[in-house]
Amino acid sequence: MVACPGFKAAGVAAGIKKNGLKDLGLIVCDGPAEVAGVFTRNRVQAAPVLLDRARVGGGRCQAVIVNSGNANCCTGAEGFANAVRMARAAAAGLGVPEEEVLVASTGVIGEPLPVERIVHAMPGLVGALAPEGLADFAEAIMTTDRVPKVVSREIEIGGGRVTLSGVVKGAGMIRPDVATMLCFLMTDARASAEGLRRVLAAGAEQSFNRITVDGDTSTNDTILLMASGRSGVDVDREAARGAFQALVDEVMLALAKWVVKDAEGSNKLVEIRVGGAVSDADARAIADAIAHSPLVKTALFGEDANWGRILAAAGRAGVALDPNRVDIFIGEVQMVAGGAGCGKDAEAAATRVLRTDEFSIAIELHLGVGRAAVYTCDLSIDYVRINADYRS
Amino acid sequence: MVACPGFKAAGVAAGIKKNGLKDLGLIVCDGPAEVAGVFTRNRVQAAPVLLDRARVGGGRCQAVIVNSGNANCCTGAEGFANAVRMARAAAAGLGVPEEEVLVASTGVIGEPLPVERIVHAMPGLVGALAPEGLADFAEAIMTTDRVPKVVSREIEIGGGRVTLSGVVKGAGMIRPDVATMLCFLMTDARASAEGLRRVLAAGAEQSFNRITVDGDTSTNDTILLMASGRSGVDVDREAARGAFQALVDEVMLALAKWVVKDAEGSNKLVEIRVGGAVSDADARAIADAIAHSPLVKTALFGEDANWGRILAAAGRAGVALDPNRVDIFIGEVQMVAGGAGCGKDAEAAATRVLRTDEFSIAIELHLGVGRAAVYTCDLSIDYVRINADYRS
Repeated sequence: MVACPGFKAAGVAAGIKKNGLKDLGLIVCDGPAEVAGVFTRNRVQAAPVLLDRARVGGGRCQAVIVNSGNANCCTGAEGFANAVRMARAAAAGLGVPEEEVLVASTGVIGEPLPVERIVHAMPGLVGALAPEGLADFAEAIMTTDRVPKVVSREIEIGGGRVTLSGVVKGAGMIRPDVATMLCFLMTDARASAEGLRRVLAAGAEQSFNRITVDGDTSTNDTILLMASGRSGVDVDREAARGAFQALVDEVMLALAKWVVKDAEGSNKLVEIRVGGAVSDADARAIADAIAHSPLVKTALFGEDANWGRILAAAGRAGVALDPNRVDIFIGEVQMVAGGAGCGKDAEAAATRVLRTDEFSIAIELHLGVGRAAVYTCDLSIDYVRINADYRS
Repeated sequence: MVACPGFKAAGVAAGIKKNGLKDLGLIVCDGPAEVAGVFTRNRVQAAPVLLDRARVGGGRCQAVIVNSGNANCCTGAEGFANAVRMARAAAAGLGVPEEEVLVASTGVIGEPLPVERIVHAMPGLVGALAPEGLADFAEAIMTTDRVPKVVSREIEIGGGRVTLSGVVKGAGMIRPDVATMLCFLMTDARASAEGLRRVLAAGAEQSFNRITVDGDTSTNDTILLMASGRSGVDVDREAARGAFQALVDEVMLALAKWVVKDAEGSNKLVEIRVGGAVSDADARAIADAIAHSPLVKTALFGEDANWGRILAAAGRAGVALDPNRVDIFIGEVQMVAGGAGCGKDAEAAATRVLRTDEFSIAIELHLGVGRAAVYTCDLSIDYVRINADYRS
């Protein structure tokens, strides 16, 4: 696995996780990179999020240091000092300005960050930095993720080649914790911080802001996009913007869908598509109501072509809907026409679709031109088992 | 079990449920009763809900006919005609005006109501009517409820005795179905339909509008309050209103809490109390976010004193909250003070509370005087198992 030109990465075990697995990762740019960030909207925000919000405003970043096994959240002034110290240790090890180091954490909430272990592990971590180190980094930021998740794409823009690499960790948790989504994107494109902000915000809107596992938003969610400029291709230019946005969109959507697919207990990646709503916002409200419905999600787990639950969830979204005009499709199979079921043959065909691990559910309202699509997964016995965290 | 003076009830098996259990219930008042109703806010509404909404406006009701095993929802014009026919059959059997018969259904969505079986069962059902028939009625309206749920209270108002009896069915479902809440309240108080409407709306606000099992709202939810006037005690009078409202509140809250306790897979009845919010609406938003959070609910199932999930759910409610001022209590045990955990001893004590089957979680925000309380249950493996509906 090759990191994006201009970046090195590494991941080591620093003793933060109790199981001895890799838990400390570092991404470094060969020189100062431009950076943009998107952070959790939760009112409760972890110390590293508070630190990054302040630092990312400067638009410059040379390194990101990330630990798993401890979220450094609800840890007060000491937690903030620990986040600063973690960045300072990386800065010292790398010989870069402290303000150009960003930090992310994921894991237990409310317990002090064992920052000494991070400081102690720093020389080994810096020594392990390599262009192909992104695989180790991806492993080091995992919690209950089943697989490390890295996506790379290369495209041609204005005669030059631009690479974008992204790594993500998804819905996983360690007691007492919440799912945290961390995503780090690296490109060798040349872009201003302002340009990156615009591209990242648009990319997030159509990817990570359209997925749901359980509707819970973490205190630590962080997405960073860094640009080394190494390719020499200026993507701030009007002519290159569209292509670069498409690249970012593609990689972010691939990562976001992977997060849903690899979510705790998840067996199905399901796109909920709503069309014909009065407005896009109405369509989104209906898509969200369906995507969050435990009754729909348990039916997905049970591979049960239960269109009544889909229609009932749509009906409680609080927006305009005429039940007598609604069509529902599972994959290509029409289950409901004008609010009425299409019969046993349709149900049998839909059940075959539900047995696959990736499909769409489309709801057509026939009221207007509003549309939206979100991604969700099933709600399984394993989801409950993982999160109930038996302690007996 | 004695029905409220002035009412008779019955429940029989009409062959709607495949398992041969009771599935058809009837409540009859000795004479015309005043009535008020509260119905689902879902945009998808079952035929009996549409019929009742129209009829309850008249303020008069002599009987309610209820079936389980089929929701008569998403059944189009034929479904509406079947609801009318079901009421007509009861009216004919009882010799009362058709417009004074209300209807409720719960069960499968999208399949035709086997109305012939209901018509066929009517003579037996009418013949079984008895003052003590409410127990059979309560059984006949069950779906996956574990127990029939009836609550009766008697109080003295202005020198007379007033009785209120309520029966409820809760969160249960049959494929392909959604949970449906049906609640029928009978009193021998004398009240106008207008007075009943006011009392019922206030009672619903502090009971059934404050419970959640899975956040899904059914297409068939119906609450009816009927007053026979038999006691001669006029509760429309200013002097009697408060006492009657308190009686209605008490019975409705007891029934609502019972629904949560007897919900699918539920093992815990948990009151989520939020205080010190900027407004009551803010407090309610936070209470709802916690009560709906799958991460909080799986932790309750796991008896895990996971305050990080509670705080994180509060933080994503979208309303004002300063994490550094938040206190959290589980039962009487303070887990969080000023946003920081209270240590291992507190956790151990809280875990003992979590092992009981009924307790409260209190969140104090220290921002204002807004407050709210809702009831929720845990999210268990059985919830998923029941709703995944294995068909293999």
